[in-house]
Amino acid sequence: MSTTLIGLDWGSTHLRAYRYDAQGAVLEKRALAHGIRHLPEGGFPVAFAQATDGWPDVPVLACGMVGSRNGWQEVPYLDTPTGVDRLADALTAMTTPDGRTLHLVPGLRDPGRPDVMRGEETQIVGVMAQSPDVARKGTLLLPGTHSKWVSLRDGVVTGFATMMTGELFGLLTQHSILGAQLPPAVDDAHAFVRGVDMARDSGAAGALSRVFSARTLMLDGTLPASSVPDYLSGLLIGDELRMAIAAGWADVQSQVHMVGEGPLCDRYLQAAARFGLAVQAAPDATTSHGLWRIADAAGLTSTHATA
Amino acid sequence: MSTTLIGLDWGSTHLRAYRYDAQGAVLEKRALAHGIRHLPEGGFPVAFAQATDGWPDVPVLACGMVGSRNGWQEVPYLDTPTGVDRLADALTAMTTPDGRTLHLVPGLRDPGRPDVMRGEETQIVGVMAQSPDVARKGTLLLPGTHSKWVSLRDGVVTGFATMMTGELFGLLTQHSILGAQLPPAVDDAHAFVRGVDMARDSGAAGALSRVFSARTLMLDGTLPASSVPDYLSGLLIGDELRMAIAAGWADVQSQVHMVGEGPLCDRYLQAAARFGLAVQAAPDATTSHGLWRIADAAGLTSTHATA
Repeated sequence: MSTTLIGLDWGSTHLRAYRYDAQGAVLEKRALAHGIRHLPEGGFPVAFAQATDGWPDVPVLACGMVGSRNGWQEVPYLDTPTGVDRLADALTAMTTPDGRTLHLVPGLRDPGRPDVMRGEETQIVGVMAQSPDVARKGTLLLPGTHSKWVSLRDGVVTGFATMMTGELFGLLTQHSILGAQLPPAVDDAHAFVRGVDMARDSGAAGALSRVFSARTLMLDGTLPASSVPDYLSGLLIGDELRMAIAAGWADVQSQVHMVGEGPLCDRYLQAAARFGLAVQAAPDATTSHGLWRIADAAGLTSTHATA
Repeated sequence: MSTTLIGLDWGSTHLRAYRYDAQGAVLEKRALAHGIRHLPEGGFPVAFAQATDGWPDVPVLACGMVGSRNGWQEVPYLDTPTGVDRLADALTAMTTPDGRTLHLVPGLRDPGRPDVMRGEETQIVGVMAQSPDVARKGTLLLPGTHSKWVSLRDGVVTGFATMMTGELFGLLTQHSILGAQLPPAVDDAHAFVRGVDMARDSGAAGALSRVFSARTLMLDGTLPASSVPDYLSGLLIGDELRMAIAAGWADVQSQVHMVGEGPLCDRYLQAAARFGLAVQAAPDATTSHGLWRIADAAGLTSTHATA
């Protein structure tokens, strides 16, 4: 089958490569540890060569932190509202040292907050390509180190917000008095739910006004020291949901579509249930779908097919 | 003049010693770097001996982290509501290796949240001793690494809340993506106020939902990288005030009395003005007054006076 496109999902810590046929099906995929913060000797060109090694010389489209200020080449953000056509029109083309052309997807900027994303815009396009209903009117949640809440309307990203939930969890458990000198963490689903409920019940003050309770409950002896991380996880994910409701991103009447899978998303599902929020998993493999969809809109998929 | 009492304010990072006359006036004070986390070789007994060196063998009363789990001897918390008499009744006496008796002030616990404090209870007693009006009905703010909001009624601490504002500022500026790779900080009063206003205007979602703006504004070029720390300081102090209002600790109709002085308290005053909150500095030297007041209520000041 002919190779039509190579797509790269190139973030801070990961580099994934996809080889597509003429219908956009992924023929082969690779995962490398060469995120832009963990490049091999030789830097970007060597990582690029490894990711595409032995694949035909077809157009290459990359999204993610590779286009950031610390990436291979900085690509300006595109302001919302933005749909796939504007993204496709705004690709930046660069020439690699070995003469290949690499097209870079811009990140998005919400000028209203302001807020920025890089890489998630391609996941979002992937969701929209697979779920026309969500594209017409939907709210997406992309949990992570920097969670994103995204508003979609008529196939356009109308706005988004970043919540630093995952990073805050790391800071509090690794560097704060709440996490200092704890024994190894033990899974404690009860402590997690207790944290979620503390956040839910914190009202407009918010869970940050209650976060010191992690220490107090431990001193009280009612929260085992080994359960503090799960309690904090519940408190922070719960506060993210509380904030999302307060800010109008989510409500109990409508459905939130969550992009991602695995233990972190399971936590969000569990926490959402404590708020009475309906959260549904969005389709999988969103980035590879998004890369194809953007490349297609940019006319990169029709002209260069090789055997 | 006769020495009647020695008071120790013994926290995590500091150790201050006061020698009092029979009327409660401080005749002499000492400051040592021997907080419980920075003890000299020989530990607590050596630090104690240095703090009281050459002073008469009179009763010694200490408050602060010296009575914590990691202190010299753990003293159980006393639940709120608590006034000076209950504190005085709950002192723990311990004998030092050289045969002195050391009385330890218990910390307070608010069972409703739950929340705890150690050392601040003595500052609060000091404020109440000097400001009967505030003791009758007042709200105290003690800014710091762990800020405390305290509710007073008829000479009794009725409840309190800890906000980890100072520690969060340290975590975000030293360890997070917002503070990573910044140039040296430059004083920027405008950036501070901008952060306060961002927090004030964040509504029930809260400033944590907007904290990523520190990075976005910097990428936009509208916030100098060297001003990010002042912006974050404003955002977090502003969020503390926002939370305090949302939780009912403060409102625009009544006055908050702030314990402390210096640049940090100046920031709180400036931020409070952006919220229309009336914050007034409480009397100084609150801990030394509080130690005397508690010792007096416990009957430690009348019997042991020596020349």
